[in-house]
Amino acid sequence: MEIDPGAPRNAEFSLIDRIRERACSRSDVLLGIGDDAAVLQVPEGHNLVLSTDTLVAGVHFPEDTVPADIGWKALAVNLSDLAAMGATPAWVTLALTLPDADADWLDAFLDGFCELADEFGVALVGGDTTRGPLSITIGAHGFAPAGIALRRDGAGFNDDIWVTGTLGDAAGALLQLQGQGLMSSKLRYRLDRPTPRIAAGIALRDLATAAIDLSDGLLADLGHVLQRSGVGAELDLGRLPTSRTLAEHFPDEQARWRIQLSGGDDYELCFTASPAHALAIEQALAACDTPATVVGRITAGKGLRLATPDGEAFDAGPSAGFEHFAGNA
Amino acid sequence: MEIDPGAPRNAEFSLIDRIRERACSRSDVLLGIGDDAAVLQVPEGHNLVLSTDTLVAGVHFPEDTVPADIGWKALAVNLSDLAAMGATPAWVTLALTLPDADADWLDAFLDGFCELADEFGVALVGGDTTRGPLSITIGAHGFAPAGIALRRDGAGFNDDIWVTGTLGDAAGALLQLQGQGLMSSKLRYRLDRPTPRIAAGIALRDLATAAIDLSDGLLADLGHVLQRSGVGAELDLGRLPTSRTLAEHFPDEQARWRIQLSGGDDYELCFTASPAHALAIEQALAACDTPATVVGRITAGKGLRLATPDGEAFDAGPSAGFEHFAGNA
Repeated sequence: MEIDPGAPRNAEFSLIDRIRERACSRSDVLLGIGDDAAVLQVPEGHNLVLSTDTLVAGVHFPEDTVPADIGWKALAVNLSDLAAMGATPAWVTLALTLPDADADWLDAFLDGFCELADEFGVALVGGDTTRGPLSITIGAHGFAPAGIALRRDGAGFNDDIWVTGTLGDAAGALLQLQGQGLMSSKLRYRLDRPTPRIAAGIALRDLATAAIDLSDGLLADLGHVLQRSGVGAELDLGRLPTSRTLAEHFPDEQARWRIQLSGGDDYELCFTASPAHALAIEQALAACDTPATVVGRITAGKGLRLATPDGEAFDAGPSAGFEHFAGNA
Repeated sequence: MEIDPGAPRNAEFSLIDRIRERACSRSDVLLGIGDDAAVLQVPEGHNLVLSTDTLVAGVHFPEDTVPADIGWKALAVNLSDLAAMGATPAWVTLALTLPDADADWLDAFLDGFCELADEFGVALVGGDTTRGPLSITIGAHGFAPAGIALRRDGAGFNDDIWVTGTLGDAAGALLQLQGQGLMSSKLRYRLDRPTPRIAAGIALRDLATAAIDLSDGLLADLGHVLQRSGVGAELDLGRLPTSRTLAEHFPDEQARWRIQLSGGDDYELCFTASPAHALAIEQALAACDTPATVVGRITAGKGLRLATPDGEAFDAGPSAGFEHFAGNA
């Protein structure tokens, strides 16, 4: 059904042509964009790993985000899910809902999208364009050797809890944006251009017991791991990895902890592993230039305890992440 | 990023729980909803066939469509793409953007969605729920034996052009809706509850030279086949398969032809095949209870000629389908 199918439909096909021209390919794409469906070859001995995420303007990125950054971020958020499974990304689909057939906007969007796709050798194999309020749904497809994918449900008692990179930069940028105060371009870059930790995910396949990507904040996302694994945890707040920029812009330690615990959008990995593997993990992640820090440990109980450097319990406050975790734990 | 992440985020997870409870599974789903991504096993010797389509309220279905019909149609439209490739459907992802976390609406939507998913043994393996204007993006995944998938680019000179079922019912319903006149519930049912021609697509794997599903109307969709195959066609308008209901509600033959040529949303298959296979096709489709009709033939030139039963040329008028085809041929 198209209620007013004339011009917009022609425009839609012109948009699809633009997308098709930019789509990089791979030898395992037997048939790409341009038919009813793509035909693809999963390598023998591998499982298909599949994730999908929607980004809505004003909800998942600020309305003022430039199109190239929207393109980058939409893909990054989806590849980050594959990273958390230890999967190698291969193919993506792109369903774009646009207010109007704006070719300039699309070209700029594709600049960012294709920059990241090319970096990871990801082929765009299909999609759809429709009219409506701006939103982007991507389906991300990757491979993992059979039986190897990282999951959320494997965390065990006394495992170390690790996070990659630094935490809270994206949430800090969002707070600055909402406060209309001084905006750090470094923090804003973390919000707009997250880097999916693909190499780290692959390196952790044989080392981590559980993994998740940090999209909703450490408390919420670690909460999923604890819930699925049936364990608890203790976090040492003094060990939360912090960028110099975040520390400068948010000098109050307790306020900063809350940002780092409850803010989302960093798209770092949080994973658990036996302490016996700590050295191997450090070496494996150093080999792919991914910093990582132990921030706590898995406990036998079901709760999550937050400890200050003085060893005191810390109340994260009525944050979304904590509320959500509490509701699911 | 969530600008106002508190309550809606909690609500989102409650919606996902509702979806997870309803998702049927399959033995090739190694890990379903509830992790960063699903882990799936494509059968050996098969290709993965992958399609994605978005449905936006008011664009792809009338605003007054009941939730169960929206759920059915969103899935049907996507499975129809797999049918046109001759693929067996297996897994789908569901990305839902909803104005608010309305559990009753979601349950009714899932009633229709799951009714169709169960009919074809399709597992819901992942998804996402976000806040925003109602839209649904589905990723449909199926299998075809290696090298067997039907494509749009194989139509050859003198091939018969076939369509399954009857044409124009959905477009007739839409016209009635827009005209605020007498509404036929039979036509409306065709608009709201299309049936993907999965069994027919599979039966045609070894018999058809090209195939496409009829979503944008016969002229537009056949136009894609002609363009990709580098051929022309002649359609015999007197042979267009017509439901008794459509004929009753649209008695003027020429007006009806225009509806059948340019109206979309029937989700029947249009395919081409050598005349030598005509009997085998009739038998194969009869075996899966799918009526099919030869409506024309492939010609060597690049144009599309429409012929009335008297053999005269017919002008389909400035329809979207025809315009679009002309623009792409």
